Amino acid sequence: MPWTDGFIAVDWGTTNRRAYRIDRDGACLSSFVDGRGVLSVGTDEFAAAAGDIRARLGDLPLLLAGMVGSTRGWVEAPYVPCPAGLDDLIRGLCWIEPGAIAIVPGLSIKDEDHADVMRGEEVQLLGAIESAMIPKRCFVGHPGTHNKWVRISDRRVADFRTVMTGEMFATLRRHGILADMLADPVVPGDAFDEGARRGLQGKLLTAELFSVRARVLLGSMNRASASSFVSGLLIGADVGVGLEMASQAEMILVGDPDLTRLYKRAAALGGMPAREIDGEAAFLAGAAALAKAIP
Amino acid sequence: MPWTDGFIAVDWGTTNRRAYRIDRDGACLSSFVDGRGVLSVGTDEFAAAAGDIRARLGDLPLLLAGMVGSTRGWVEAPYVPCPAGLDDLIRGLCWIEPGAIAIVPGLSIKDEDHADVMRGEEVQLLGAIESAMIPKRCFVGHPGTHNKWVRISDRRVADFRTVMTGEMFATLRRHGILADMLADPVVPGDAFDEGARRGLQGKLLTAELFSVRARVLLGSMNRASASSFVSGLLIGADVGVGLEMASQAEMILVGDPDLTRLYKRAAALGGMPAREIDGEAAFLAGAAALAKAIP
Repeated sequence: MPWTDGFIAVDWGTTNRRAYRIDRDGACLSSFVDGRGVLSVGTDEFAAAAGDIRARLGDLPLLLAGMVGSTRGWVEAPYVPCPAGLDDLIRGLCWIEPGAIAIVPGLSIKDEDHADVMRGEEVQLLGAIESAMIPKRCFVGHPGTHNKWVRISDRRVADFRTVMTGEMFATLRRHGILADMLADPVVPGDAFDEGARRGLQGKLLTAELFSVRARVLLGSMNRASASSFVSGLLIGADVGVGLEMASQAEMILVGDPDLTRLYKRAAALGGMPAREIDGEAAFLAGAAALAKAIP
Repeated sequence: MPWTDGFIAVDWGTTNRRAYRIDRDGACLSSFVDGRGVLSVGTDEFAAAAGDIRARLGDLPLLLAGMVGSTRGWVEAPYVPCPAGLDDLIRGLCWIEPGAIAIVPGLSIKDEDHADVMRGEEVQLLGAIESAMIPKRCFVGHPGTHNKWVRISDRRVADFRTVMTGEMFATLRRHGILADMLADPVVPGDAFDEGARRGLQGKLLTAELFSVRARVLLGSMNRASASSFVSGLLIGADVGVGLEMASQAEMILVGDPDLTRLYKRAAALGGMPAREIDGEAAFLAGAAALAKAIP
């Protein structure tokens, strides 16, 4: 059965998996998300976990992306070095079951000064290009646990850089001396902006973070503002990296709308206009483009 | 019984307490360290915990410093605003039992641009001054869970700034995507220096940290070097803050010798000579100076 007759695309991450049944006209008929991320699946349980996806969405070919292709996943799909486009991903597909189950490879950068890797975001990025959501040459931010700043050139991922903003924020919220001050939700307002301005100035995070505690203890910051300030600080510093690397006069932000909204706000404070693209739509477009190109 | 006839000084932190019996000639006759830090003592158990110290070291007056004077401690000893010297600490002593049990207050900075607090380090800093281990005007680093960069002027703590380097390193070692790469001991060698150089350049920590993972995955960094590199990165960034704030041509590093050694190494890479002072000796000197000054 050719992939264009229908298939299942899975964004299989560390803690969650999102599975989508995609019809021959490219529409997503049904989908689910659950907590069966890579870390919750034993190394010999992936075939069963994939069978469970088919049992729920249909007996169709499976296209798997994300950490499922890492050393901790089902089978390691070696990184494809950048610059890389859709054709390179197709060539790098790791076939678990010929013609029926494939894992999309991640991308890597390795030069003297910098090393970097991504897994999962490449499907969204190339999907956004193939479906003309974004131009063939642009500068993209992909906020998430590990934000990626990406230079797209000639329809390929030319270069990228990871900033572990989301992980750092989640860790600070759960562990250490600031944790009990960071329970409140992040609100895009004055405290976020104040943090983002400091972050954009490139102040040292490990110094600024402690000052949050001092401000709350000494009464110069409302405790309820602390999480928004810290989020602003981390995202502002992250956007500062993006501004340095930006090759265009506009940023395109692909991802979860709750996150792209905060990055857009920080980018505006840094003088850079930004446009938001829904990450899920980009993933579906990328999966469809890959399925269409499978020989 | 006057304090100069002998007393017990306790450095009572979040996770540990260190108690020293100090004789009338200022010598430390006996001491112990245990895990009865503030977090392991219930709010109504401090009197018993102090009684336990006396049972072990003698029925003498108690001088308590550190987190025991925080909101989570025995009784809150309000912060004394800087600039502050030994006389200000004496005036700020929080007497639990008049003449017999006192808690040393912490210090604070609060101005428009910066807020900061310390608890415990002030005894070491003022002790080092009073015993002429350090000059009456100098620039001090106090590495620990939360490193403090301190301007000493006219025998007083004039200004300081906290960088949460130690906590960040401990957190990265225990939680998140780098944890499994950071189990090795930190070695003062090439990997530490390479990290410290990057840290001193002020590169964004949340970006550099992820690159450690990528370097190990792509084979451009030895896994055993990762913890030394990350330690260098964090300490280098921290020393960068110190270099910016330094008011002297020399840094004095007070604290645990294992830590001051690493900071001295990073400072040398930043072109700044540094001198090391043992933190425990400074604490004992500070406690003796306080006891002598108690009216």
